[in-house]
Amino acid sequence: MKVVKFGGSSLASGAQLKKVFNIVVSDPERKVVVVSAPGKRFAEDIKVTDLLIECAEKSLKNEKTDQVFEAVIARYQDIAEELTLPEEIIQEIRLDLTERLNGDKSKPDRYMDRMKASGEDNNAKLVAAFFRKMGVEAHYIDPKEAGLIVSDEPGNAQALPEAYESLSSLRWRSGILVFPGFFGYSKAGDVYTFSRSGSDITGSILANALKADLYENFTDVDAVYSVNPSIVEKPKEIKEITYREMRELSYAGFSVLHDEALVPAFRAGIPVQIKNTNNPTAQGTKIVADRNNTNGPVIGIASDKGFCSIYVSKYLMNREIGFGRKLLGILEDFGLSYEHTPSGIDDISVILRENQFDKEMEEQIIDRIKTELHADQVFIQHKLALIMVVGEGMRHNIGTMARASKALAKVNVNIEMINQGSSEVSMMFGVKEIDEKKAVQALYNEFFAPVMV
Amino acid sequence: MKVVKFGGSSLASGAQLKKVFNIVVSDPERKVVVVSAPGKRFAEDIKVTDLLIECAEKSLKNEKTDQVFEAVIARYQDIAEELTLPEEIIQEIRLDLTERLNGDKSKPDRYMDRMKASGEDNNAKLVAAFFRKMGVEAHYIDPKEAGLIVSDEPGNAQALPEAYESLSSLRWRSGILVFPGFFGYSKAGDVYTFSRSGSDITGSILANALKADLYENFTDVDAVYSVNPSIVEKPKEIKEITYREMRELSYAGFSVLHDEALVPAFRAGIPVQIKNTNNPTAQGTKIVADRNNTNGPVIGIASDKGFCSIYVSKYLMNREIGFGRKLLGILEDFGLSYEHTPSGIDDISVILRENQFDKEMEEQIIDRIKTELHADQVFIQHKLALIMVVGEGMRHNIGTMARASKALAKVNVNIEMINQGSSEVSMMFGVKEIDEKKAVQALYNEFFAPVMV
Repeated sequence: MKVVKFGGSSLASGAQLKKVFNIVVSDPERKVVVVSAPGKRFAEDIKVTDLLIECAEKSLKNEKTDQVFEAVIARYQDIAEELTLPEEIIQEIRLDLTERLNGDKSKPDRYMDRMKASGEDNNAKLVAAFFRKMGVEAHYIDPKEAGLIVSDEPGNAQALPEAYESLSSLRWRSGILVFPGFFGYSKAGDVYTFSRSGSDITGSILANALKADLYENFTDVDAVYSVNPSIVEKPKEIKEITYREMRELSYAGFSVLHDEALVPAFRAGIPVQIKNTNNPTAQGTKIVADRNNTNGPVIGIASDKGFCSIYVSKYLMNREIGFGRKLLGILEDFGLSYEHTPSGIDDISVILRENQFDKEMEEQIIDRIKTELHADQVFIQHKLALIMVVGEGMRHNIGTMARASKALAKVNVNIEMINQGSSEVSMMFGVKEIDEKKAVQALYNEFFAPVMV
Repeated sequence: MKVVKFGGSSLASGAQLKKVFNIVVSDPERKVVVVSAPGKRFAEDIKVTDLLIECAEKSLKNEKTDQVFEAVIARYQDIAEELTLPEEIIQEIRLDLTERLNGDKSKPDRYMDRMKASGEDNNAKLVAAFFRKMGVEAHYIDPKEAGLIVSDEPGNAQALPEAYESLSSLRWRSGILVFPGFFGYSKAGDVYTFSRSGSDITGSILANALKADLYENFTDVDAVYSVNPSIVEKPKEIKEITYREMRELSYAGFSVLHDEALVPAFRAGIPVQIKNTNNPTAQGTKIVADRNNTNGPVIGIASDKGFCSIYVSKYLMNREIGFGRKLLGILEDFGLSYEHTPSGIDDISVILRENQFDKEMEEQIIDRIKTELHADQVFIQHKLALIMVVGEGMRHNIGTMARASKALAKVNVNIEMINQGSSEVSMMFGVKEIDEKKAVQALYNEFFAPVMV
């Protein structure tokens, strides 16, 4: 049995819904269909979710909502007309949305969640109606009725353990089950949405609860690439990748799937298949617990800008029990999360995203480290890029570091820092931001496209 | 003006004292002479300090001390006879030691410190007497009178700030000043010793207090080697090295000078010259604040065995503010100090010396990390060696990492981990203990003795 999730662009028009239908019915294992709200039909189009957010914001400010409300309805209507669905379905959607719009505004974030959730909820009803019109047994599943119980955190809900238990009984329902993504209900019966891209999370929760054999995630790319296509032209596609590798690559430039969305599937060991709705015969990328080591130690290279390094040195630091813990405690007081802490004997650097603080906080941090830790030297190096070279095979492949560092030296990139952990799925290189593209290209050439001399 | 310190083997016999005298008078800048207690004359010999510890331990247990007491006196007597010094000096030493032996035993660690300190104290009197007999103006300096005030920590005293002020006036005393190393006096007037090898510390404090131009440290090796001579035969000698490089190398195998001893000289920017009493014309090694970059990015390679790595992984660890701080807090609760913390996105390893804990504590640590941090995986990898490749020039020398990692790959050594900090004086490689020698040899060949192909 497979849980199949379709993203917004896969459900943006009647033509897209026909593709979705053909994909679902072509494999009898595809039992549960998780849907997003209708997405963009063309680059300048507006997603239904964004229209709903605008509508809710206007309503909360007591501004006129007619125009944006009708824009939402029009999106569903366009699809329904294209598919010659009966008018009733649009009336049902209009009724639902009107009710939400005129609902209780005393708790604005809950109001917002109810409005946003309607995008997926109503789309699921529409999709189910279309499937039935095409002659297959299909049911819209209400997450409340099905028991998708979540924590009461607006915009950041988490599925509660009992949700898995309740949802598991969906397995015994007949027909194709069309389930709206992105939200669940609190124990008190209120709507709460997951974080953005939350439909991926719904699919992953259902795959876990129903012990699916596979969680298929249909989007608009053929596969996950081994490197960011905006840096390297036509990069190699990844056929199979482990959860850990995917997570390391998600550092940057690999945002096909929401990190958090993988967790429920990962915990249950269910493989996740990324596929393209617009090109369903393409092999796609499969995310698995273990993979066969194929060619080469590296599976992908990710990079991101916008990091800085707080450097702290103190003679005999190494002898001071508690130094590192105190340093991290200071950063925690400022609410900062950090990425790595490479260290020498008497110095330590903390690498973190620089958008977390401004000049003023920076000075406060330096001041506290100097005063409280009696450091000899504290300074911040800005504009760093981190490059992750990722691959499960890397650890026991002697010479990978030599190849990577030589490739960087050849193109004259200075390695500002290196961090290679213990159980190795990745090597991290810190370079100056201006060297990022050159460095990624050189590493890609080394591991994926050796140039003949 | 120079402060000159002589180690125990440089003062072990009359013949050695003659060398010391010739060294001191050959340079009129050598004003302050810091002496250790007489050391070993031959491999099986016993140092006076060790005899004194035995004597103090026996006395504290009310056992007979005559034999070991006389063994101490005999060492001074042998030297005095060899140098035909008047009998009075030995009588003075005997009187002093008898008084200490019969002193207050109510605080055993202070009694021990008084007994140990006599080794240096009496040797300074002997050396001053010999210098005077040779016709130069020389004075024994009593640390109490000179104002070397220290904290009251037996065996681990620290010089107090006011000590520097008091000692500075020694500058205006005439003649050569012979100062006993290893101890000072508390404000209450009691003897407290520095940590082992504390005579190096005394010399460094005096160099700082007297604003010396140079702190010469005479020992029994020609120079600091670029690599451990027990791993690489006849390694290159280091002519000039910075404090930071010296400190990184002191990690292992470079124990010529006590780390802590460098601090006072380092803070005052006074260079430290390592020289050989038995071969004073050899250039030796100079430890400086800055050095001219000569040939190659690497100045030395140090390595040590006996490390282990605690590996902790948890999916989405990267998102958890406070994870690293909590992990280090647990280790701190066990009193453990750590060396490095290389990390991936969702894993972190803590590298530490494995002699700090046993099997039982290991299990407790793993248990606490699993329970309190909800880690997915926690395990310990034993028998690791750390190799430090050290050099100030390394940071801006593109390709150093490529050369190092290629050298290791060539001899088939797997790099278990790499840690390269921010302001780089060193690169750290973790390898299996069994690969240590092979790895060090390969790195030495790469950076110091390139083999022709």
